[in-house]
Amino acid sequence: MTTGRNTEQTGNALGVVKTQEVQLSLPDTGLQLEKGGTLRELTVAYEVYGKPSPGNDNSVFLCHALTGDAHAAGLHGMEGEKPGWWDEMIGPGKGIDTNHYQVICANILGGCRGTTGPGSINPDSGHPYGATFPTITVSDIIGVHRRLLDHLGVTRLAAVMGGSFGGMQVLEWAVRHPEQAARYICIASAAQLSTQALAFDVVGRKAITSDPDWQQGDYYETERRPIRGLAHARKIGHITYLSPEIMDRRFGRERRELETPAERFGTNFQIESYLDHQGRKFVDRFDANSYLHITGAMDDFDLAERHGSLEEALSKTEGKFLIVALSSDWLFPPEQSIEIARALVQTGKPISYCLLQAPHGHDAFLVEIEHLSEAIRAF
Amino acid sequence: MTTGRNTEQTGNALGVVKTQEVQLSLPDTGLQLEKGGTLRELTVAYEVYGKPSPGNDNSVFLCHALTGDAHAAGLHGMEGEKPGWWDEMIGPGKGIDTNHYQVICANILGGCRGTTGPGSINPDSGHPYGATFPTITVSDIIGVHRRLLDHLGVTRLAAVMGGSFGGMQVLEWAVRHPEQAARYICIASAAQLSTQALAFDVVGRKAITSDPDWQQGDYYETERRPIRGLAHARKIGHITYLSPEIMDRRFGRERRELETPAERFGTNFQIESYLDHQGRKFVDRFDANSYLHITGAMDDFDLAERHGSLEEALSKTEGKFLIVALSSDWLFPPEQSIEIARALVQTGKPISYCLLQAPHGHDAFLVEIEHLSEAIRAF
Repeated sequence: MTTGRNTEQTGNALGVVKTQEVQLSLPDTGLQLEKGGTLRELTVAYEVYGKPSPGNDNSVFLCHALTGDAHAAGLHGMEGEKPGWWDEMIGPGKGIDTNHYQVICANILGGCRGTTGPGSINPDSGHPYGATFPTITVSDIIGVHRRLLDHLGVTRLAAVMGGSFGGMQVLEWAVRHPEQAARYICIASAAQLSTQALAFDVVGRKAITSDPDWQQGDYYETERRPIRGLAHARKIGHITYLSPEIMDRRFGRERRELETPAERFGTNFQIESYLDHQGRKFVDRFDANSYLHITGAMDDFDLAERHGSLEEALSKTEGKFLIVALSSDWLFPPEQSIEIARALVQTGKPISYCLLQAPHGHDAFLVEIEHLSEAIRAF
Repeated sequence: MTTGRNTEQTGNALGVVKTQEVQLSLPDTGLQLEKGGTLRELTVAYEVYGKPSPGNDNSVFLCHALTGDAHAAGLHGMEGEKPGWWDEMIGPGKGIDTNHYQVICANILGGCRGTTGPGSINPDSGHPYGATFPTITVSDIIGVHRRLLDHLGVTRLAAVMGGSFGGMQVLEWAVRHPEQAARYICIASAAQLSTQALAFDVVGRKAITSDPDWQQGDYYETERRPIRGLAHARKIGHITYLSPEIMDRRFGRERRELETPAERFGTNFQIESYLDHQGRKFVDRFDANSYLHITGAMDDFDLAERHGSLEEALSKTEGKFLIVALSSDWLFPPEQSIEIARALVQTGKPISYCLLQAPHGHDAFLVEIEHLSEAIRAF
């Protein structure tokens, strides 16, 4: 039972929402990508919460993080399901108040949750793209977001926002299309990955591409999937998403009873069970090639490199900025947010900077919502 | 051209030294290990620098780190070789002055550099131990060190010292055999791994055991070696050995010209080349099963768990302590050294604590020698 805008609001919650998929029309030459590739067809999966204002100027576009999807809030109406990934933030009376704003969230290009990606059917061959899926960039991802907005008839946004890799999309958007939004909110992100974060990505990707089941990316029509490599990459990721303090506090050196004896060289430390669990869950919902493409786009993103300097890049922006850093985040450390904030100040842009005391590490933007909500609401 | 003590001193350097291997005599029941296993034969590889004093009380036993070996200083006389892994620290007039001290360093039990380990021949089968090599602990490692000292006729040590996993051996030694040394020097170490460090080990071991070439550990007599898994584990390790600052400073986001095009999803970032290089170098000199056994022993080490509390454990010690922490070390962070120092103070033990300002991260104890030398010399 969805409304015209695919959102049912029950009490204080969004209720049941639905992911929509739309095949967007492209020019005859297809979608030209920044690194030279082309896509002949483009499908985008998205969700919308709230309603447009009479002036059609109340839309917030939400850019999701590395492995997120369009389902940011509400329920899909399935038994025992968890709500969308930022449900605590989005809804009537919440940080992003759907009584006032219409929120749009779309799965990114290269993803595996409804938007065209390496697992989609290549119309030229009738088979999944696999190894033939072209290289994508953050700019390409933004380009697809903008095509979706055209389709939805939304020209001007109240805000573009996102955390982590979503924050990089926000920055790219602000620099390349400064006229499109009144506000840009960038949470726990950076104008480029640190060398350490880059290093973890490099190692994670290698775990996938050295998994024999990866088959150079052409595994979709075989019986095998590179689940060992993908689970492995995810486990590395999970270590980097949590602060050392929260890891100590939540798992410490606790051991647990094992139902079956550990494999040789496995342990019964809680942290091993937790990481195994995260790895298993991830391979059920995510595609290895998408992980490769999206982390590749993230690693390549570098505002200063492309525009000469960060100041030069951000001097092109027009909207108001909110830059939020998380105190215990070591993957996108506060210094990187300060770097963005400083460059905005130096180029005379309106900017609010907020350092949230959040012990959870990088993941805090997904789990420690209360203060973040306040900061966003105030902005 | 070695002297009677296998050391040739040329000018200010140790000159050419030689690794000696000795098969130690064992009781008829063999070497009983803490977790229940038995070894019927025991070979130990070791090096000695400097000469014993007339009272035979000037020996320093050096416990090496995870992937170290007996070759701590001097040269082996081969063309283009690098000196031992702590050559800057050990020698005439250096931090550990071989004009005054006799330094002994041995490859640890379970290793692959001369001391009995999973790649050694099992006398019962005539084939390498492989999967049958028994589980070892830090206590077992110390036990073998002590057997070597018996063989060398050294009863009382001037000091036991080591960094990282070597520091854990020092702590175990101090608690279990407090009478054996006058001084215990523990550098960049901990009384137990942090949850985060544990997590990285868990993931690194899984990379090896999920490599099909590992073959449950019985690869020695096959054509295959789990080099992908081992290189992968080493790369994760290397990220944790360096501080984020030094990574940024040394590699940043620099790219390099590739001789051959990168594999798909490989990058030309310097950091990827560096990690690949470290992975390749490592698999040439280290054995995957040794890595599994030794990291397993490290993960299992926990003074507080075994003795009820850290204070209870350290109350058993007798010698003087020097605890050294490295400011930018995030694998064995200074807080963990402070924890040891505090417990020693609380139990009324003589302790010196030193926090070295060292930007290199955990690896600083191997590369930033100058101030560490001073601290050790002073102690």
